[in-house]
Amino acid sequence: MSDARFLYEDVAGYITELVDMGTLPKGARVPSLREVSQSRRVALSTAIQAYRVLEGRGVIEARPKSGYYVSNYRPITLEQPAISRPPESASAVAVSDIPLKLLEYGADPRLIQLGASMPSVKILAAGRLGRLLAREARTNVHKHNTYIAPKGVARLRAEIAKRAMHWGQALSPEDIIITEGCTEALALALRTLTQAGDTVVVESPTYFGLLQALEALDLKALELPTDPTTGIDVAALERALSGKNVAACLFASSFNNPLGCTMPDTKKHEILELLASFGVPLIEDDIYGDIYFGKERPRPFATFDRNECVIYCSSFSKTLAPGYRIGWIATTHRADEILKRKFASTLCGPAVLQETIADFLASGGYEHHLRRMRSILQGNMERMIRTVEKSFPEGTRITRPSGGYVLWLELRSKANTRALFDAALREGICIAPGDVFSTSGQYGNCLRLNFSQPWDLRLERAVMRLGELASSMTA
Amino acid sequence: MSDARFLYEDVAGYITELVDMGTLPKGARVPSLREVSQSRRVALSTAIQAYRVLEGRGVIEARPKSGYYVSNYRPITLEQPAISRPPESASAVAVSDIPLKLLEYGADPRLIQLGASMPSVKILAAGRLGRLLAREARTNVHKHNTYIAPKGVARLRAEIAKRAMHWGQALSPEDIIITEGCTEALALALRTLTQAGDTVVVESPTYFGLLQALEALDLKALELPTDPTTGIDVAALERALSGKNVAACLFASSFNNPLGCTMPDTKKHEILELLASFGVPLIEDDIYGDIYFGKERPRPFATFDRNECVIYCSSFSKTLAPGYRIGWIATTHRADEILKRKFASTLCGPAVLQETIADFLASGGYEHHLRRMRSILQGNMERMIRTVEKSFPEGTRITRPSGGYVLWLELRSKANTRALFDAALREGICIAPGDVFSTSGQYGNCLRLNFSQPWDLRLERAVMRLGELASSMTA
Repeated sequence: MSDARFLYEDVAGYITELVDMGTLPKGARVPSLREVSQSRRVALSTAIQAYRVLEGRGVIEARPKSGYYVSNYRPITLEQPAISRPPESASAVAVSDIPLKLLEYGADPRLIQLGASMPSVKILAAGRLGRLLAREARTNVHKHNTYIAPKGVARLRAEIAKRAMHWGQALSPEDIIITEGCTEALALALRTLTQAGDTVVVESPTYFGLLQALEALDLKALELPTDPTTGIDVAALERALSGKNVAACLFASSFNNPLGCTMPDTKKHEILELLASFGVPLIEDDIYGDIYFGKERPRPFATFDRNECVIYCSSFSKTLAPGYRIGWIATTHRADEILKRKFASTLCGPAVLQETIADFLASGGYEHHLRRMRSILQGNMERMIRTVEKSFPEGTRITRPSGGYVLWLELRSKANTRALFDAALREGICIAPGDVFSTSGQYGNCLRLNFSQPWDLRLERAVMRLGELASSMTA
Repeated sequence: MSDARFLYEDVAGYITELVDMGTLPKGARVPSLREVSQSRRVALSTAIQAYRVLEGRGVIEARPKSGYYVSNYRPITLEQPAISRPPESASAVAVSDIPLKLLEYGADPRLIQLGASMPSVKILAAGRLGRLLAREARTNVHKHNTYIAPKGVARLRAEIAKRAMHWGQALSPEDIIITEGCTEALALALRTLTQAGDTVVVESPTYFGLLQALEALDLKALELPTDPTTGIDVAALERALSGKNVAACLFASSFNNPLGCTMPDTKKHEILELLASFGVPLIEDDIYGDIYFGKERPRPFATFDRNECVIYCSSFSKTLAPGYRIGWIATTHRADEILKRKFASTLCGPAVLQETIADFLASGGYEHHLRRMRSILQGNMERMIRTVEKSFPEGTRITRPSGGYVLWLELRSKANTRALFDAALREGICIAPGDVFSTSGQYGNCLRLNFSQPWDLRLERAVMRLGELASSMTA
């Protein structure tokens, strides 16, 4: 994908690197648009786009009639969290009611939304999607008011299969089952592969919704040490598979929630071979895969799966339509059983919403929308990290994900982010406390911040205020 | 509800009774509109409406300048099926793939739809609903494209609670959880009340979707003898509760699918007391409750529930919007656990569809729509029974439900309705074979017919043809 569309990110990355290395110190003049377009062999318009992005991210600033200069930008000095160290035994899951509350708070317009991992509606193509829905509602009233086949609308399944070609995933529309969001996809996969009392191997920390799905099915969670950049520890996975009776693994392959880590392709191959040798299936959660800040979309496990051991789950909830509740499962592994469970669980989905998403995809607007969204999110992330750096107590660590829209912060060990959660909420700020991302009572000194809200002074002040609260609580 | 709106049904019932009793034989002159309005003390307009309905049902016919006469109408002579006699032991559930196919066939416009229990879109207010959806889609684009609280949109919950007042059910909007159709409501209730291996007591025959829900959860079904008019045998229920470890009962209180039976209120009281004494909860499926042909809507179990033992489930799928997938659970019994499972299962539903249904209810159009729908369905049912009477082999029995839109036919014992299903499908007619409504291999000589399609010659011919096929197969 060294596509023309991504050349401006090349240029932006090049300038950022020069600033990070100190070659271009604060206040230094940045190569002019003409210079950079010549030296990097890109069109002038690409250079203009790159500099606009860099301005947005606060790396450079334009001075009238003079050119571009390095702004207050300086390299981020905060450390990343170390690899996690969860206990080696599986434990029963009992999630608090905080996750439910996060969703309720997420719908409260008075709160500053740093809690739920929900894309701000302002960066979604909500208007266009609404117009397409209105058109479907007006023109196909009769077609839409019936039950449909549990698998879902054929047009949507075809569009999803087409999109997967972009990253080399060979899917047939027939391998796809449309679900009520990724939540239903994961729940159906778990119900098909496990029985009450079984152990499921997960990342640590991991998405609390997964933990709730495990709890609802009386499953045990075995958390693996997870590196904030490269994901799970393969040796620990091997130990887990050898020692315990593991029914399934459940990993997010790209920009996992909350760490933001992405496993390298070599690690994915290794894991798949390991799983094949133990005969353990993998449920893959790829819900953030399309929100990558690098040049290429990471390739999901399913792309490399030669042994039909992967059940791939994703949705449009993080990129386009959280409110439309449309996800999917793509698998040839036990597809009939999954479909039967879909039928018994929700019968079928609403045709009109599935058709609307298919309209959006078929119109070609999705790629454009994703590019815009990624650029905004990457800028937001950089601003949020810098604001944390300014305001949080010494010793705070923070992740540097290459996609998605959440940051994971680790405060000093005596910090209590549940207390921080309560204190912040009293001031109208919602965050996600760290302990809900594990079943082993860890991460009580961590928190997750959603950076999908458009960056503005109000948001910056909220992050600053969080830093003050954290400082006063750990002082 | 001796409301003016129902007076015309009184008059229609009075005339039908006179015809059934032979007081008014075929070809006899029927009292004039003026006569009947005087004798029954109703407005002339009510009499006109009643006679229009009777014409539609084929009971009377108008002769120009002469008045009304009894048409070819004669009382139905077909017997009803006897009370069912399922085995007394619980059995594991393994449903065939026919139910899945019924749903797929149900979306095929080339087939004559007597199979899936889906209201014909032609009798739904699909146009009005589509316009309301288009309006919501245009005007609230941002509001709708977010996750919402798992419980669902507050306005919709308030409208549902208000409607339940009509039949004396005291509900708070806070007791209601919106679900993806009644299917999700029942599945959540089952997941909350049972564990794999448990026994659930059901009617016999019963809706195959329930059996699939039981199968997906590894539950056993214990089927009770069920009378086609008054529902389950209470003595058999008592034996079941005494002898076995029953985790829950799952009954349809009104116009159950497929028998169409409705338990009298006294029986409901008896059952609730029995369940309370054994400490066994009841999952109530009231999905057909609004489609009553009599004067009053039957009152659900939940109305009489003093011990918080009922989990009430319903949806708009049979009356308004099968394609919108909106159902609900109303309960104070274990509501928190149900909500947690909803969160783990589908997170939340699509706001825009919930708001649209709320718009429809708030506009007051729902009652009018229901009245129109009931009148059409009752006429369809009478025509279908008469067509069955003309064309099916001797000894065929058929139910006479007082609501809903399915008929249950019992052919002579050697008949094989799975073979009839295949033969009919080859001729473009879809029916539901009887064996899928039980887990004990019974009802292989039965079938279910959906009478919600607008009655026309094509439909009449299809039913006639079914009768011929059945006759030739049992000859």
